[in-house]
Amino acid sequence: MGAVVDMDSTRGKSPQPSLEDLQRLTAGDLNAVNALILRHMHSPVALIPELAGHIIAAGGKRLRPMLLLACARMCGYRGERHVGLAAAVEFIHTATLLHDDVVDESGLRRGLATANAVWGNKPSVLVGDFLFSRAFQLMVMDGSLDVLAILSEASAVIAEGEVLQLTTANDTETSETQYLDVIRSKTAKLFAAATRLGAVVSGRPKVEEEALETFGANLGIAFQLVDDVLDYASRAATMGKSVGDDFRDGKITLPVVLAFRRGAAEEQDFWRRTLERLEQEPDDLERAIALLDRHGALDDALDRARHFSALARDALDLFPACPEKGALLDAIAFNLQRSY
Amino acid sequence: MGAVVDMDSTRGKSPQPSLEDLQRLTAGDLNAVNALILRHMHSPVALIPELAGHIIAAGGKRLRPMLLLACARMCGYRGERHVGLAAAVEFIHTATLLHDDVVDESGLRRGLATANAVWGNKPSVLVGDFLFSRAFQLMVMDGSLDVLAILSEASAVIAEGEVLQLTTANDTETSETQYLDVIRSKTAKLFAAATRLGAVVSGRPKVEEEALETFGANLGIAFQLVDDVLDYASRAATMGKSVGDDFRDGKITLPVVLAFRRGAAEEQDFWRRTLERLEQEPDDLERAIALLDRHGALDDALDRARHFSALARDALDLFPACPEKGALLDAIAFNLQRSY
Repeated sequence: MGAVVDMDSTRGKSPQPSLEDLQRLTAGDLNAVNALILRHMHSPVALIPELAGHIIAAGGKRLRPMLLLACARMCGYRGERHVGLAAAVEFIHTATLLHDDVVDESGLRRGLATANAVWGNKPSVLVGDFLFSRAFQLMVMDGSLDVLAILSEASAVIAEGEVLQLTTANDTETSETQYLDVIRSKTAKLFAAATRLGAVVSGRPKVEEEALETFGANLGIAFQLVDDVLDYASRAATMGKSVGDDFRDGKITLPVVLAFRRGAAEEQDFWRRTLERLEQEPDDLERAIALLDRHGALDDALDRARHFSALARDALDLFPACPEKGALLDAIAFNLQRSY
Repeated sequence: MGAVVDMDSTRGKSPQPSLEDLQRLTAGDLNAVNALILRHMHSPVALIPELAGHIIAAGGKRLRPMLLLACARMCGYRGERHVGLAAAVEFIHTATLLHDDVVDESGLRRGLATANAVWGNKPSVLVGDFLFSRAFQLMVMDGSLDVLAILSEASAVIAEGEVLQLTTANDTETSETQYLDVIRSKTAKLFAAATRLGAVVSGRPKVEEEALETFGANLGIAFQLVDDVLDYASRAATMGKSVGDDFRDGKITLPVVLAFRRGAAEEQDFWRRTLERLEQEPDDLERAIALLDRHGALDDALDRARHFSALARDALDLFPACPEKGALLDAIAFNLQRSY
């Protein structure tokens, strides 16, 4: 099931954009990041590496670490600090995933049982706290207060975004602005911090730090928009992402915001019943997808993603052409046409 | 209900020990800490200060901040950094309380409904994350990597202790050593970090840092031991601490460890039924208290608390007599005879 959406219209003449260049260029550094992650998730309390290993090894793309590593190299960085900071960013990301899955009562992530489904909520909350602490220990080892300021602020903003999302959950009156506020905080902020750190470790001028922050923030928004579209439109049950999770949870994402606003009274009643009161019947997901189609809500959400992708692209103008820059531009394009 | 335990036998000739001196000597600084806490728990997301205010204002003793403030003054500190660090320590403590209450499914804390009982688990987890991030932002403002190293390590150890506690929960075979490992991490570590920071901000030599860490760690262990005794022996339903919470949760605290080890086979069956399988009947708490009494388990747990209190006292020998030192010695004695 899933609506048919043309996700390829910005692809242009180039071959299918992919993450391959990004992965190839950061492969060596990413191996070092993975080794550091394994070393620092160790604890004499066996359940901690067991549970952390389950989610960390579960095949995440390591997108945030790769972005940080590539941005640092694009800035001409030749040292090793970016490895530790990429591991810290991934620890923060993993901690928020563990807590998210508890908050959302999720049972599956990337096609595997979530940690809370396997071990229960309690260790998921506490191991999240542990990984979060480990992230700060890695930053302390790095030794830069600038880095600590960026990532401690990002962590606070992420938590704010998550709480804001709770207060808009199941509220069909949520506006596009409120939706953007949520994803700017809960998703885009960590992308922005990761990419900014590429310039920070390289000692580049403030204007480049800010350009990379702008790049990361807009890519992060576009990334979440595509995720939210795929939750209704995934063309294949690839990578464990299944259609309809957000619908079943009553999450108010941009496609729903648009379809609700554009819908007749009877349609709005449908959204209120299914997403606010969570009274869902077997055919409701199909009806929801039909309504999103009727109002062009998925296409328009993708248009918004293209807009933020353009801002992300422009932010890279400052940097001279190099393989890493090409790979980052590819990553922007890849996001817009991915199907998982 | 509650066993009769002589908690006053170490009181000696002095008047009833109290926290009054500690409170009086730190009152000015503590006002500044409270103002800082209020300022930094602010967020545009209204639910955050609302929920955080509920637990922060709920009448905690601010014991950890007071200990940090008094240790700094005892070390001759004349600056203002101790205020920010005391607020950071209280934020970490509050974040762990929020997560603890979710993990323990607690409904009451200090006689008030817990945040998770009022708002649910989701915002409690996320606001805990927010306060934890704020703690690190306060440390970054302070600007010392030594401080950040101490508190990020303490946070990781606290989480380890909490996970370790989960793995021993409902296991009547838990040894005294395992119990001590848990409380050394989950409770004593933050006490130790707070008191050590008193010497750190004052720029005192390592030997004094370590003496204050030893003081805090042992006071923290004694504090948790007394808490665990009071859960079976509280002489009054003061301060919202009610008898039997740990029993109903199946928590394995030292009184139970001792009574189980000393009990006949039939008694061990009783503990297994009530604490492992959580099959509890109306009279079981009374029977549990009778068994603890028969084996002197509460008195012996208090003896252990006196032992760790003696270590805490000895650690202060290094410091010359001053009002703050007297107040810290009083705090050790107060803990041993408190009834809430």
